[in-house]
Amino acid sequence: MAIVGVGLIGGSIGLTLRRRGLADRVIGLGRDPTRLDEATRLGAIDEATTVAEHAVAEAEVVVICTPVTRVADDVIQLAALADPKALITDAGSTKRTIVAAVEADPRGRAVFVGAHPIAGSERSGVENARTDLFEGRVCALTPTASTAPDQLQLARSYWSSLGCRLVEMTPTAHDDALALTSHLPHVVAAALASSVPEEVLPLAAGAYRDGTRVAAADPDLWTGILLQNREPVLHALLAFHAGLNVLTQALRDGDSPGLRSLLADASARREGFESERQSS
Amino acid sequence: MAIVGVGLIGGSIGLTLRRRGLADRVIGLGRDPTRLDEATRLGAIDEATTVAEHAVAEAEVVVICTPVTRVADDVIQLAALADPKALITDAGSTKRTIVAAVEADPRGRAVFVGAHPIAGSERSGVENARTDLFEGRVCALTPTASTAPDQLQLARSYWSSLGCRLVEMTPTAHDDALALTSHLPHVVAAALASSVPEEVLPLAAGAYRDGTRVAAADPDLWTGILLQNREPVLHALLAFHAGLNVLTQALRDGDSPGLRSLLADASARREGFESERQSS
Repeated sequence: MAIVGVGLIGGSIGLTLRRRGLADRVIGLGRDPTRLDEATRLGAIDEATTVAEHAVAEAEVVVICTPVTRVADDVIQLAALADPKALITDAGSTKRTIVAAVEADPRGRAVFVGAHPIAGSERSGVENARTDLFEGRVCALTPTASTAPDQLQLARSYWSSLGCRLVEMTPTAHDDALALTSHLPHVVAAALASSVPEEVLPLAAGAYRDGTRVAAADPDLWTGILLQNREPVLHALLAFHAGLNVLTQALRDGDSPGLRSLLADASARREGFESERQSS
Repeated sequence: MAIVGVGLIGGSIGLTLRRRGLADRVIGLGRDPTRLDEATRLGAIDEATTVAEHAVAEAEVVVICTPVTRVADDVIQLAALADPKALITDAGSTKRTIVAAVEADPRGRAVFVGAHPIAGSERSGVENARTDLFEGRVCALTPTASTAPDQLQLARSYWSSLGCRLVEMTPTAHDDALALTSHLPHVVAAALASSVPEEVLPLAAGAYRDGTRVAAADPDLWTGILLQNREPVLHALLAFHAGLNVLTQALRDGDSPGLRSLLADASARREGFESERQSS
């Protein structure tokens, strides 16, 4: 098994593979020897290399955990070196651009299955990797008409073995949904963090803390994600703007029943999410 | 010691007073005998009453933990019944309207010190009360030129004894700050919960969960808070709108360096908040 990019996600995959005895050998491929040494020391990988050929020559499964802006290029490069029976999958937060770019390449198309384990943290880096990061979490697989059936089966086994619950959908459906459930909340958290001045933060508590938590996420990673899913995110922002404007207008009008009803609706939706999670 | 309104906040005050042996007797005043029984059963109060005279006749400190729309009336009613040497304080999330209304009443003015322990939860009710709710949390006291010095001293001792770190400020400064640190995040969380449709929630994870957590808060309580602090909240919403528009525009323009710089600024602010909290 090979892991390309051994940060929070790649490192957590490695820890889980090794802890569960799912691989004879886990090889980490990266560009920074210091960070690869750290990943080895933390037990996320058995061995490290900066040479693509070494990483994938014997790998049955290669998982690409690099930033979304690099995933497609990494898949195409490694597909040229990998066993044609191998699976190459990824963990990128966007799927449409990545899948389309990979499928334009015949060798990439033959081995690739797009995936997105919906788990993570505002903390990046292998030092935050955990063996339980994927336990019970949803992993979206985004096969297309071009996806090879054997590779799809391998992808299902691989992500299930890490503890994920699988859902399958088109790359476009994935990106539209994630624009709402993940990318929009990241933009909103960043806007909230930007609009509350530092001098009042001693009076901040739980509402601010939770509302801005993901604003601490890596700016480079998130610039890539947002730009790669630009249209669906802009669409989600329109929906958010509309919701915020209705609330603002009710407040401006001093419309107590109207405001109460909007807050009650939001509260009911949130409670529905929480009870779904607890029952799943 | 008397507690008026024995829900999450009043219940947590009672539990803490009793656990720490800070009161000979803690009396709970409320309107619903069933909920008062529950508070007694949970150990939040020693005895319960629905009769104001019984609650405050011998109380040295009376704390009003009713919804902000009722605090001022409750203070004024109880000030007429309480020992003139007693302290009446409150735990309301807004201060300007409450303090102004109380200070228009001579007996109210003589015994009242406005307070806001900045602690809470999206869960209300005495069943969620905790002895550690106030530990290390900031409590804002909002004395004015009319506040009696003895009562102010009593208020400082009282809220400190519950574990709070005290800050003192004007009611207006309090409301302006809380509009940004608490009321704005509540409106934003409600807007976010309202704009993400239920059918995509199986693909939601941490970013949505945290970004919408306080949307689950009690709609009645929050309608009262937002309307009572309408102007500062509308002002905070303008700042948020501006921040969101800049982010949206950078995304629309595909302006990668601009977007990255906005996200980096938000991330740095959030990290600053986290490190402040950890060092305090």
